[in-house]
Amino acid sequence: MATTPPTRSPELRKDPVTNRWVIFSPARAKRPSDFKSKSPENPNNNSSSCPFCIGNEHQCAPEIFRVPPDPNWKLRVIENLYPALSRKLDHPNGQNDDSSSELSGLGWVVAGFGFHDVVIETPVHSVQLSDLDPSEIGDVLIAYKRRIEQIKQFDTIKYIQVFKNHGASAGASMSHSHSQMLSLPIVPPSVSTRLNSMKEHFNQTGKCSLCQVQSKDLLINETSHFFSIAPYASSFPFEIWIIPRDHSSHFDELDNKKAVDLGGLLKLILKKMALQLNNPPFNFMIHTSPIQVTDSELPYSHWFLQIIPQLTGVGGFELGSGCYINPVFPDDAAKILRELNVPI
Amino acid sequence: MATTPPTRSPELRKDPVTNRWVIFSPARAKRPSDFKSKSPENPNNNSSSCPFCIGNEHQCAPEIFRVPPDPNWKLRVIENLYPALSRKLDHPNGQNDDSSSELSGLGWVVAGFGFHDVVIETPVHSVQLSDLDPSEIGDVLIAYKRRIEQIKQFDTIKYIQVFKNHGASAGASMSHSHSQMLSLPIVPPSVSTRLNSMKEHFNQTGKCSLCQVQSKDLLINETSHFFSIAPYASSFPFEIWIIPRDHSSHFDELDNKKAVDLGGLLKLILKKMALQLNNPPFNFMIHTSPIQVTDSELPYSHWFLQIIPQLTGVGGFELGSGCYINPVFPDDAAKILRELNVPI
Repeated sequence: MATTPPTRSPELRKDPVTNRWVIFSPARAKRPSDFKSKSPENPNNNSSSCPFCIGNEHQCAPEIFRVPPDPNWKLRVIENLYPALSRKLDHPNGQNDDSSSELSGLGWVVAGFGFHDVVIETPVHSVQLSDLDPSEIGDVLIAYKRRIEQIKQFDTIKYIQVFKNHGASAGASMSHSHSQMLSLPIVPPSVSTRLNSMKEHFNQTGKCSLCQVQSKDLLINETSHFFSIAPYASSFPFEIWIIPRDHSSHFDELDNKKAVDLGGLLKLILKKMALQLNNPPFNFMIHTSPIQVTDSELPYSHWFLQIIPQLTGVGGFELGSGCYINPVFPDDAAKILRELNVPI
Repeated sequence: MATTPPTRSPELRKDPVTNRWVIFSPARAKRPSDFKSKSPENPNNNSSSCPFCIGNEHQCAPEIFRVPPDPNWKLRVIENLYPALSRKLDHPNGQNDDSSSELSGLGWVVAGFGFHDVVIETPVHSVQLSDLDPSEIGDVLIAYKRRIEQIKQFDTIKYIQVFKNHGASAGASMSHSHSQMLSLPIVPPSVSTRLNSMKEHFNQTGKCSLCQVQSKDLLINETSHFFSIAPYASSFPFEIWIIPRDHSSHFDELDNKKAVDLGGLLKLILKKMALQLNNPPFNFMIHTSPIQVTDSELPYSHWFLQIIPQLTGVGGFELGSGCYINPVFPDDAAKILRELNVPI
């Protein structure tokens, strides 16, 4: 396999949104276009024993809602059978969160109250999220929004992490296409760091750091309401962000029309990623604002969706330092994905 | 396989050292004693093509030093053939670091100057670190110290991350036992967060948070100068910290006597981990203080060595939130490892 000699020197970049340092180290890499997944996902068509398939609803934990609300559903939101947090803990709604955390002598502790939900994105086992129509993907996004609106009623929930694991090595224990929502009684550290970082940028410049990302070199694709980029300080090769054009602090401000628009862009990006990178396992995460805080309190916050294809592993350096080593500069990744044509 | 019903409710804990929230979620787990690696490391005895083996020195990048300094060496410190950072960049020693970082309009950027070294821990391919005598492991630790003392001469280097990847899925590209040292022109985010967190604890209590960790429930083993624990808010199942008893901010304060003592404890812990957890891939990281800062400036900082066996994967929740889900409470992990007998 031919490789080009490295033409760029390594450099360290710090992202103004995540506040994270990344080492770009092209000397370690093959050509950016040679990056492929070594463990591509093969869709599992064996649905006979899958509890997420239509007809097997009785094998699942309780349902929260389905769309449409009849036996011939297109998506379902259910409880996770093995929840990381418990919705049954004695943690009355409305209790002040400050009183619920206590210092044990060794550190802080909070009762593990929370919701861990699963969004089954399709009734059919062999269908992946990117196989759905833009409007069907929009329905999935609107299901996230509807569930967020329900959970907002619980004052004790501070943040809802929406995420998708695709492929066993990206953390998916079920091959049937699904995503998850974990509702937490705390604001997690990545969120606090991101909000502090965006606030600092806002205070210094008077502008939102994501509204300002308008680099042609980093752009992949754009639609009426969203644009996708390879972020300036991508932690991972071919990491992608999808960002709403309009300044918006909370994901659940998404309306039906924008949901379909986002569905189309997400579909395109997932198709491009699968084609270019050999159908890699991937994760996506929605980065939004804490739910008990209003837009006007967060003029610097702007939600986005982050997609990370799994191409490289993590070792002791990353675990120890919190820095990542990325062999692909984001403008190279963006160019490859921007110029790629996929049949949709 | 019999599993016990979950007897403990989930809880969230925040570590006073790392400032990281962890969800302890035993309902998702098998019994703590049933945790085993699914991808155990099988020592690779094929040394014919290994550049790290004695006799193949000419296949390696340049040597920095060897111990002892003769052909029959016991360990070597060499340059990494594929360094993440470049020691050749035009980055004169003594330059003020503030002038070397610049805002590109999209974020901060620093030239990728630094050192990426490899410590070959043994001349023999089939020997693992835990097979060495305590004094030989002590020699490896003293080699880290000696290299740190050399790199300290470069004002532009701010932090040195010492780490070991054992096993391909823990990031090791070579099976011959080795560790790495990556010398950075920045203080990485995990280090800043840790120092801020320890400083806050110190300001509130007047005490060092690691000097205070004296919980019998979390203790695994101890020696004259070190003790090992499963930390209160372990991010990973069976995560282990080895902590010097004497308050010390910098790893390179280690003397020869303490190095042998630490070598013995590290050997014991690695042997226990291999026996209990089915020889898992693992990482260890030395968490120390920035090199250009003196002890008296960091009264709250205390170095330690963190060991993470690779037993569970990371998914979108962890990537998105920065929180980890740990199915094993640390007192359960500590009890199992404490009570385990291994032939040394």
